[in-house]
Amino acid sequence: MAGEKITTRAQDYSQWYLDIVNRAGLAENSSVRGCMVVKPHGYALWERMQAALDRMFKETGHVNAYFPLLIPKSYFAKEEQMAEGFAKECAVVTHYRLKSVPGKGIEVDPEAKLEEELIIRPTSETIIWNTYKNWIQSWRDLPLLINQWANVLRWEMRTRLFLRTAEFLWQEGHTAHATKAEAEEETAKMLEVYRVFAEEWMAMPVLFGPKSEGQKFPGAEYTLCIEAMMQDKRALQAGTSHFLGQNFAKAFEVMFQNSTGQLEHPWATSWGVSTRLIGALIMTHSDDQGLIAPPRIAPVQVVICALGKEAAEREASLSAAKQLATALKALPREEFFNFDTIAVKVDEDFHNTPGYRFNEWELKGVPVRVEIGPKDVAQNACVLARRDQPGKEGKQFGIPLDQAPLRIVELLKSIQANLFAKAKAFRDANTHTVETYDDFRQKIESPGGFFLAHWDGTRETEDKIAAETKATIRCIPKNLPNEPGVCMVTGRPSAQRVVFAKSY
Amino acid sequence: MAGEKITTRAQDYSQWYLDIVNRAGLAENSSVRGCMVVKPHGYALWERMQAALDRMFKETGHVNAYFPLLIPKSYFAKEEQMAEGFAKECAVVTHYRLKSVPGKGIEVDPEAKLEEELIIRPTSETIIWNTYKNWIQSWRDLPLLINQWANVLRWEMRTRLFLRTAEFLWQEGHTAHATKAEAEEETAKMLEVYRVFAEEWMAMPVLFGPKSEGQKFPGAEYTLCIEAMMQDKRALQAGTSHFLGQNFAKAFEVMFQNSTGQLEHPWATSWGVSTRLIGALIMTHSDDQGLIAPPRIAPVQVVICALGKEAAEREASLSAAKQLATALKALPREEFFNFDTIAVKVDEDFHNTPGYRFNEWELKGVPVRVEIGPKDVAQNACVLARRDQPGKEGKQFGIPLDQAPLRIVELLKSIQANLFAKAKAFRDANTHTVETYDDFRQKIESPGGFFLAHWDGTRETEDKIAAETKATIRCIPKNLPNEPGVCMVTGRPSAQRVVFAKSY
Repeated sequence: MAGEKITTRAQDYSQWYLDIVNRAGLAENSSVRGCMVVKPHGYALWERMQAALDRMFKETGHVNAYFPLLIPKSYFAKEEQMAEGFAKECAVVTHYRLKSVPGKGIEVDPEAKLEEELIIRPTSETIIWNTYKNWIQSWRDLPLLINQWANVLRWEMRTRLFLRTAEFLWQEGHTAHATKAEAEEETAKMLEVYRVFAEEWMAMPVLFGPKSEGQKFPGAEYTLCIEAMMQDKRALQAGTSHFLGQNFAKAFEVMFQNSTGQLEHPWATSWGVSTRLIGALIMTHSDDQGLIAPPRIAPVQVVICALGKEAAEREASLSAAKQLATALKALPREEFFNFDTIAVKVDEDFHNTPGYRFNEWELKGVPVRVEIGPKDVAQNACVLARRDQPGKEGKQFGIPLDQAPLRIVELLKSIQANLFAKAKAFRDANTHTVETYDDFRQKIESPGGFFLAHWDGTRETEDKIAAETKATIRCIPKNLPNEPGVCMVTGRPSAQRVVFAKSY
Repeated sequence: MAGEKITTRAQDYSQWYLDIVNRAGLAENSSVRGCMVVKPHGYALWERMQAALDRMFKETGHVNAYFPLLIPKSYFAKEEQMAEGFAKECAVVTHYRLKSVPGKGIEVDPEAKLEEELIIRPTSETIIWNTYKNWIQSWRDLPLLINQWANVLRWEMRTRLFLRTAEFLWQEGHTAHATKAEAEEETAKMLEVYRVFAEEWMAMPVLFGPKSEGQKFPGAEYTLCIEAMMQDKRALQAGTSHFLGQNFAKAFEVMFQNSTGQLEHPWATSWGVSTRLIGALIMTHSDDQGLIAPPRIAPVQVVICALGKEAAEREASLSAAKQLATALKALPREEFFNFDTIAVKVDEDFHNTPGYRFNEWELKGVPVRVEIGPKDVAQNACVLARRDQPGKEGKQFGIPLDQAPLRIVELLKSIQANLFAKAKAFRDANTHTVETYDDFRQKIESPGGFFLAHWDGTRETEDKIAAETKATIRCIPKNLPNEPGVCMVTGRPSAQRVVFAKSY
């Protein structure tokens, strides 16, 4: 309940996560199995993520469109890997009408049975490539660089808010290209967009590189990913970019005339990130006081708490708070802010104690809190508290109000940088190099973390390791120093170390 | 096909509409019955609409959230009117898994049948009020001012792109209030937001007021609406705001403790607009050359066509075009632009003829076209064409490039005002006052339009008129001069004239 402390990470990490999701007002389970309600503060985080990502997609030449929610069942049979990969988790629409039955309430009308069942999209490659068939005739129609913001549904048996839910929100990019090289370039480019977003916006360091065969997307030739380390040292896949080759073009009979007049299948990519990123954000930065939102993603970047006991005091502090808010919003626009201006909120919730109010804003993860009480009003100043570090600035003499806006921007930038540095130091400290399988099996249990190990490149070895340790290959990293060696399990040659970890 | 003329309004109004939807790249039918693909240019219109509306919702204190796509069947039985209203058009999920059957492909797994069927939301009152039960305990939790951007599905037998599709995109506001008066104020406030959006952004004049009982939303105490006239003189309902009374609070057992400690049911509103507005926009402004997008909603507000035959000419005109684009983007921000800067596109599609290129931009509805050819480069000038009027500006001596940005902004504002004035003049010219039912029956067929007539306020008379003329009461208008009288059908007293029309 409000006012109570949340569970600490040391007490129960899973409960700590759920407490933050609940108490920061981010999401809750709905009465529909596996489907969550994204609450206003959680949705505001998603809006900030969408804004930054959507700009980056457009800067790289993409446009948005929208494709149907429902997909004919037969489409899934056209691409074999996809059918295998998603068949077990598809919600199926079989009827299109209800009817009132006297005495029994509302029932499904058996007369309104569909001839062909429709599937709620678990991902949209099939319906989109079926559409692209009509859009792509000539090399002049290429590349087709399209993104969709949408909800998707995958029936999950074990769900966890944001991290694994039946319905989730995401974006899915689907591009078509005249050449293999161009499609592979796109696959890499969009992974880089995700890396920049994760690191520079979410302040979340990521490893990046291809997935192993065993972990790739059904229907892809290969999958590139970004992988982050959570505070329990488990890995979380935060975004993927797939090179689909000509698989979907062939399955849906899409051909184009190239510039020399010959018919060819185009080359495809797809790439996506989802509301799962909100889970990643929580588990990367937050502490035992609640959420810590990186400034560039925070729905409220600065809260100004007006304080005072008497009516006259309250009026004076509220007036100063509003003036400061106006000054903050009038700052010249910076890309750093994400939206047009700094997101600032004035808190005039005088009927609660200052301590209660500060705790609530800490729970919600607001990066900078400004306090203006009677003493501050008297010296035309304020006190500043940054969410990522204990203590306050200006407690003695106050930060003069006319200097506060620039100081607050400095603080926001410093918090953004500090959160990234802290998360990176944590990941690096928990990334280990191992040489033997025995050592690996011991250390994956304790202390846990990311393990750089040699692997012979076979599915067989990968499966054996997963079965015996529950650790999987997270990626074949491209941003870590590396060298060839021999597989820790079989002793066969290995081109480079790969990253093993237990994962979400 | 590209280059061909579209059907004119005089030839075939319906085909004219479909030609614009198709040739301007707005949408197309998908292979799934009733579900459309919103193509990039159509989606860009929607994004511009969303941006303007979302700002207005937030300025009026609303926040966004997201509720599940799927709703348990039993929820529909809880609010009787809603069950009646939507049961006939609900897609029903009955299973949650497919399986591969050797030799038969992919089939629905009969073992994965849901205990309770799930309905794809046709609207979200039920699932949202089931959620609000946990969010509303005290008067301090009120008002709850929440909006959702989402897809919904209503199984339609006769569909038409944007105007009536099974799946469509929309926003639905759902608010809860401590008092009836406050909820009614909200209902009116959001209708006013829609009116401002329709008139000041879409340049589409609307009548507004309550719907009659026969036309209200299932589950509402009353429905307010905005109604626009299309170019075929038929009415289109463009947005609705519902006062729901305590119906959903009672159905879902939502109670709060008021400030004197007593338990009460909160009062509700809901309000929505959808991708239908894109259809309204097309049919309000477009002409026989194609789409005309009002500047504040146009995805591309200004296109600059670089022209030239020789390589050197092309280089020079392209360079001038890019400079002008930069100058346009550097203009001080205005709310008029909708997004941060004017949306400007440089067209360097030299391999097509100027005539072809101009036609394509006219088809797509771009408000201002700038032409820069060798002659213009020589005099450091350009030629301007506005989409809403024939002719060009600066054909003789050119508009000097350094003066062009301000002139272009003037043109955009002039086009916005002109489109509204033109549409309003059209509606006013086709709005008639009738006194007798005979006169009404004749004129509703020809010339058609909006008819201000007296009606006795009964459902019986309303149904009779609809059955005999296919015209319905569009609204009880609050923004037209009016007076009491007697019903044109029954001669019984009437408090004011209402608007009859045939509608989409």
